[in-house]
Amino acid sequence: MVKEKFVVTPWEVRGKVDYNRLIKKFGTQPISNDLLKRIERHTGKLHFMLRRGIFFSHRDFDWILDKYENGEKFFLYTGRGPSGRTHLGHLIPWIFTKWLQDKFDAELYFQITDDEKFLVKPKLTLEDTTKLAHENILDVIACGFDPKKTFIFTDTGYAKTQYKLAIQIAKYVTFSTAKAVFGFRNSSNIGITFFPAVQAVPCFLPSVLKGKNIPCLIPAAIDQDPYWRIARDVAPKLGFYKPAQIHCKFIPSLGPEGKMSASEPGNTIFTTDTPGQVEKKIMNAFTGQRATAEEQRKYGGNPDICSICQYYYFLFERDEEKLEEIFEGERSGKLLAGEHKRALAERIKKFIMEHQRKREKAKDMIHRFILAD
Amino acid sequence: MVKEKFVVTPWEVRGKVDYNRLIKKFGTQPISNDLLKRIERHTGKLHFMLRRGIFFSHRDFDWILDKYENGEKFFLYTGRGPSGRTHLGHLIPWIFTKWLQDKFDAELYFQITDDEKFLVKPKLTLEDTTKLAHENILDVIACGFDPKKTFIFTDTGYAKTQYKLAIQIAKYVTFSTAKAVFGFRNSSNIGITFFPAVQAVPCFLPSVLKGKNIPCLIPAAIDQDPYWRIARDVAPKLGFYKPAQIHCKFIPSLGPEGKMSASEPGNTIFTTDTPGQVEKKIMNAFTGQRATAEEQRKYGGNPDICSICQYYYFLFERDEEKLEEIFEGERSGKLLAGEHKRALAERIKKFIMEHQRKREKAKDMIHRFILAD
Repeated sequence: MVKEKFVVTPWEVRGKVDYNRLIKKFGTQPISNDLLKRIERHTGKLHFMLRRGIFFSHRDFDWILDKYENGEKFFLYTGRGPSGRTHLGHLIPWIFTKWLQDKFDAELYFQITDDEKFLVKPKLTLEDTTKLAHENILDVIACGFDPKKTFIFTDTGYAKTQYKLAIQIAKYVTFSTAKAVFGFRNSSNIGITFFPAVQAVPCFLPSVLKGKNIPCLIPAAIDQDPYWRIARDVAPKLGFYKPAQIHCKFIPSLGPEGKMSASEPGNTIFTTDTPGQVEKKIMNAFTGQRATAEEQRKYGGNPDICSICQYYYFLFERDEEKLEEIFEGERSGKLLAGEHKRALAERIKKFIMEHQRKREKAKDMIHRFILAD
Repeated sequence: MVKEKFVVTPWEVRGKVDYNRLIKKFGTQPISNDLLKRIERHTGKLHFMLRRGIFFSHRDFDWILDKYENGEKFFLYTGRGPSGRTHLGHLIPWIFTKWLQDKFDAELYFQITDDEKFLVKPKLTLEDTTKLAHENILDVIACGFDPKKTFIFTDTGYAKTQYKLAIQIAKYVTFSTAKAVFGFRNSSNIGITFFPAVQAVPCFLPSVLKGKNIPCLIPAAIDQDPYWRIARDVAPKLGFYKPAQIHCKFIPSLGPEGKMSASEPGNTIFTTDTPGQVEKKIMNAFTGQRATAEEQRKYGGNPDICSICQYYYFLFERDEEKLEEIFEGERSGKLLAGEHKRALAERIKKFIMEHQRKREKAKDMIHRFILAD
C-alpha cells in the first residue's frame, strides 16, 4: 500500500492534494469536456470555476441535466457549520451556487449546522453558535442569492420539521456505518453520531414539503463528499432520488501548504477583515518566487505554488487572458513579490469592502431568507 | 457468580422478580416506614400502592420532601412509548402519579416517545406511532389529571423545544456510556442511540422554561430506572438538580409467569377491551388453586401466585380488610376458581367501562393537555 502524501476527509485536509487521485479514491466522476459543453448549452458562457476546473468532480450531475432537459427542475442544497468567521474559502462554493441558482432558476436550501458545531467543539456554547450562525448567514446573503428562491435555516431553529425526517433517515443508518463514514469513535457523543441524519434531511425535505420527488444537487468542496454517502444509501429506501453532487477544490492557505482554514487566522482572509488586516496578511503571504529579487528576475518563479497567483486563479481574476499575464509575469521573473502582492491586496480589499457593504444590507433582509418552525 | 433466576432491564423483564434483590442490584433505596410516615404527614391517608409496597423503591424521594418542606415544589415526569394499546399495567404508575399530583399540587410533564417506538420497531411507521400516541393520550387523560397542571407532548410534536436541550445533554453522553446503560450495539441505528438524550429532556425542561431550578420526581416501574442514570449523571454538568425517582412493581401477567405485556394479548387486559374480552381473559387466567374443586376445598390455594388475587392486590380491591378476606378465601379453600374469577371479571368490567367513558370525554379535552411547538 502506497502511503498517501495527502489526506482529505471531512474532518481533515492535509498535504498537497492530488485531485485526480481523489476522484479515484472517492469514486466520483471528473467533469468531462462533454459535460461542460452540455452545461454550456443551458447556461451560456461557463462560470470561470467550471472553465478552470475549480469545480472538477461530480456524482450524477449528468443525471441532473437529464432531468432538467426533461422538464424536471432540481433544487440546490449546501450549508455551513458556524464554528467561526466566514473566510474566502467558504465563499467559493457559495459564489458558484449563486450562479447555478441564476442559470437554472433553482431553489436553494441552505443548512446552518449549529447543532453540529455545538456538539463537536467543546468550548462552543449554544449562545456562541447562534451568534456565529447569524454572522455567517449575513455572508451567505451577501453573495446575492434570490430571497424568493433561497431558504436558510439553522438546525436548532428548524428542528421540528427536520427531526421528523431525520428519524426516518436514522432508522436506516447503523452506528457502524456512521462510524466508518464519519470517523466516529465509541467516545463520540450521541448527539454528533445522530447528526449525519440531520445533515441528510435537506436532500429530501423539499420533496416532502412539496409532495413530489425533486432532484437535489449539492455544490460543495470535495472533502464533504463522504457525508452524502449516507443520504445516497438511504434515498431509495425512503423513495427519494439520490442527491447529486458537484465538487470543488480548496483555495490554498496563504502559507506554504494546506487549505485556507480559520485555524490559521494569519494565513486566512476573513470577510470581516479590515483593509489593514487584508494588506498585512497578503504582504506576509507565501509566494512561488525566489529568495531575492535578483534571482527572481533571473530564474523566474512558480505560479502553481504561489498563493498570490492562486488567489487570482480561484477568485480575483476571472478573465483568462489577464490571469495568464499574471502567471507569465511570475514565471518570467518580471513580476516581483512586492508589486505582485500589492496588486492582489488592492483587489481583495475592494472585494471585501463591497462584500461588507452587501453584508450590512443583508441585516435588513435576513427575515426574507430564514426558514424556521 | 450466582445465575439470576430473573432478568429486569428496560428492554426485558423475565422470571419471578425478587424485588429486594433488585433494590441491591440497581442501588436504589427501599421505601422505609419512616419515609412512609413522612409522606403521610403531607398527604393524609397513604395511597394503597404505598401501603402495600407496590411502590417500593426510590432515589432521592427523601430529598424531594426536604425541598417540598422548604417551600420548593417539585414537578412530576413520566411517559409512555406508543407501541400498542394501553393495558392495565400502564395505568398503575399513572393512577399513582395522579394521586401525587393532587396531594402535592404538582405539575406533570408527560412525554410520549413516538420517536423511540418508531426507531426500535421495524414495522411501525410514523403514521402508526402518531395514531397510537393519540390513543394512548386518551388513556392518560382518562386517569383524571388536572388539565391546568398537566402537559402531554409527543417527541415529534415538541421537537423544536426538546432538540435544543437534547443536544446540550447529548454533548456529555458518549456512545460507550449509552451502549452500556441502554444495551445498544454497533448495529443499533443512530436515531435510537440519540434517544437517551431526548428522554432526559423533560427532567430539566421545566427548569429551562421557568428559568429556575425545579426538583423533578419520576414515578415509573423499576425496569425504567437505568434510563435515568444518564439524566442523573448529566444534571450537575448542566447545573440542574438530579431527577428523583419512585419505583413500582409489575402487575403480573394473567398467565403463570412474567409481567403483563402487550406481546401476550391473551394474558393482558387492554383499556379498550370489550366486556366480553375481559370476561374471557379472566376466566382463562392462571390461579393459585388446586387442580380440582375438591382438592382446593381440602388443601386451599396460594394467593401469592394467583393472578386473580394479584389483580385485586394491584388495582381492584383498595380496602385492606376486604383484600384479606379474598386472600383468606383462596388460602382456606372456601373460594373456588369459578366464583373467584367471575367476581373479579365483574369488578374489571365495571372499571374498564368507566375508564372508557372517561376516555370518550378525553377526546374533547385533549387540546387542553397538549404541549407542542
